[in-house]
Amino acid sequence: MKGYQTHSQTGILLNANEASQNVDDNVKQEILDAISNLALNRYPDTTCHELHDLYANIMNVPSSWILSGNGSDQMLGFLIQYYLQGNKTLYTLAPDFSMYDYYVELNHAKIEKFETSLDGSFDVDAFISNGKDKKVDMILFSNPNNPTGHAISKLEMIQICEAFSNIPVIFDEAYMEFGNESAIDLLKTYPMAFVCRTLSKAYGLAGIRCGFMISSQVEKLASLFIPYALSSVTQTIASVVLRHAEAYKVNIAAIISERERMYREVKDYKTISFYPSNANFLYGRTDKKDILMNLFKEKNITIRNYADTSFRITIGTSEENEMVLDVLRRFEYANS
Amino acid sequence: MKGYQTHSQTGILLNANEASQNVDDNVKQEILDAISNLALNRYPDTTCHELHDLYANIMNVPSSWILSGNGSDQMLGFLIQYYLQGNKTLYTLAPDFSMYDYYVELNHAKIEKFETSLDGSFDVDAFISNGKDKKVDMILFSNPNNPTGHAISKLEMIQICEAFSNIPVIFDEAYMEFGNESAIDLLKTYPMAFVCRTLSKAYGLAGIRCGFMISSQVEKLASLFIPYALSSVTQTIASVVLRHAEAYKVNIAAIISERERMYREVKDYKTISFYPSNANFLYGRTDKKDILMNLFKEKNITIRNYADTSFRITIGTSEENEMVLDVLRRFEYANS
Repeated sequence: MKGYQTHSQTGILLNANEASQNVDDNVKQEILDAISNLALNRYPDTTCHELHDLYANIMNVPSSWILSGNGSDQMLGFLIQYYLQGNKTLYTLAPDFSMYDYYVELNHAKIEKFETSLDGSFDVDAFISNGKDKKVDMILFSNPNNPTGHAISKLEMIQICEAFSNIPVIFDEAYMEFGNESAIDLLKTYPMAFVCRTLSKAYGLAGIRCGFMISSQVEKLASLFIPYALSSVTQTIASVVLRHAEAYKVNIAAIISERERMYREVKDYKTISFYPSNANFLYGRTDKKDILMNLFKEKNITIRNYADTSFRITIGTSEENEMVLDVLRRFEYANS
Repeated sequence: MKGYQTHSQTGILLNANEASQNVDDNVKQEILDAISNLALNRYPDTTCHELHDLYANIMNVPSSWILSGNGSDQMLGFLIQYYLQGNKTLYTLAPDFSMYDYYVELNHAKIEKFETSLDGSFDVDAFISNGKDKKVDMILFSNPNNPTGHAISKLEMIQICEAFSNIPVIFDEAYMEFGNESAIDLLKTYPMAFVCRTLSKAYGLAGIRCGFMISSQVEKLASLFIPYALSSVTQTIASVVLRHAEAYKVNIAAIISERERMYREVKDYKTISFYPSNANFLYGRTDKKDILMNLFKEKNITIRNYADTSFRITIGTSEENEMVLDVLRRFEYANS
């Protein structure tokens, strides 16, 4: 096993799709007050009752359909461990989130990847027929896709759920708050469908490690999940923030607006191909990536660099985004 | 799978071997100040650098031998998942911590249990020869034992490590701060030996979910462990408390003293058999357990009840312990 490559933490960090700013001061004070009242010596509420009720209300699902853990990673890891024992095959996209490979390897399962176009789009009919041919046992991909930002339509989700109604179909919606069509509405119709979500991105809580699995299957799986997966501190912070969920819509809208502003400016660049994004990042490709990475490095900006010609830039504050655009402009000017 | 039975959380809680009191006010203020300075929007330090340095110093091992996660449970789960893939066999004691069964079942592994005497003691030679006969693949038991409180000597640990030098031998030392001889010193001599520890018991931090695996093997295993297993908040709280580790020795000594005081009083009871304990609880057996449980229930005291004739009572505050003794005295008086 190779393990997982974690993120650098110096300079202007636009490499891990984190929120660019900490919780605001009022929310922070509420968090500190709530932690001050916690009995740290007691085990957490393993049912995460309050947190699940709050999130169920936001997602408009029964709270018995919600399970939470140490980031959505842990939920994905649990699903892979539970459903793919005995050398079974996970079906995903290429490129997609690298943690899927990690969990597949850890569980000695197999992985079948369907290669997407450069912009992350793919032919859903071909995806389905290849999956049938390969007799896959579970489907899991990120939507919006990480790293491309591409998202499939609800009609395409339905096609996949219809074609694979007997195996788990997991939509990893870590970035869906920045997108449009969620698979949440499909969970009622398709009992083997799952949606995974996180508080690390749109809710700006990467530090507390809190993610969710949502599915009617949770009523069956919850008792099998590791007890006390979420500390009482994480439950408390998550609950405080989710009580302010309405306010976060403003932040999310601002990020989407910044993303669109940046994309409009760079989409016709000759030296870099950028693609439409439904997430809080832009994904691009260039043959002269070494030069581009050096320009970012000079400005102390860390972006995500991939092994091929591609890279990914998190949408940051307006100021950070201007610095990014300035680098991109200089690169385009010098190389076209 | 049956899943794991979690704990009741009402009344006087002497059922989960938690500390009876929260962190003191000075430590709490330090914790709040540190959390106030955290960037909750950023992913945690996945290497847990500061925390591991602090804990390495306390345990007198290199910090590269330490790995931390969501309670020692997660460390045990990782070891079982890593070493027992492919229907391999875990060797443990009966009775022992029920989470071992949970992880074995989750990973479709097998479990072989060596039955101990009523007081938790066992013949180490017989344990070894049975393990050899059964061709076990990994050894894991709690020492001091949960639920009996029995602990084996360092000489017995060495016998086991010598006999099984090619397979992982894991000493779950969740309660060792209340005991005497740790396996920590053996890690240098036996590369396949592991010690697991937790901050949930002696350090009174069950709410934050922080446990450790200590072994020279960690240098090999660390990169395979799930990234970001510990939230930045848990790392922060754990680090604050460990900076005060010296002060916790007073609490620990007080619990040991209370345990010995209680044991001296009840050890010759005719109606209940109590056993010597090296942990922060007393373990007992009685044929009239229903009556005893009702007496505790009347006083709103929750203790741990097992399916057989046995039960376990956490050592609490002096006042709580007096209430416990009062129940035990009344039971002894009424039934003997």
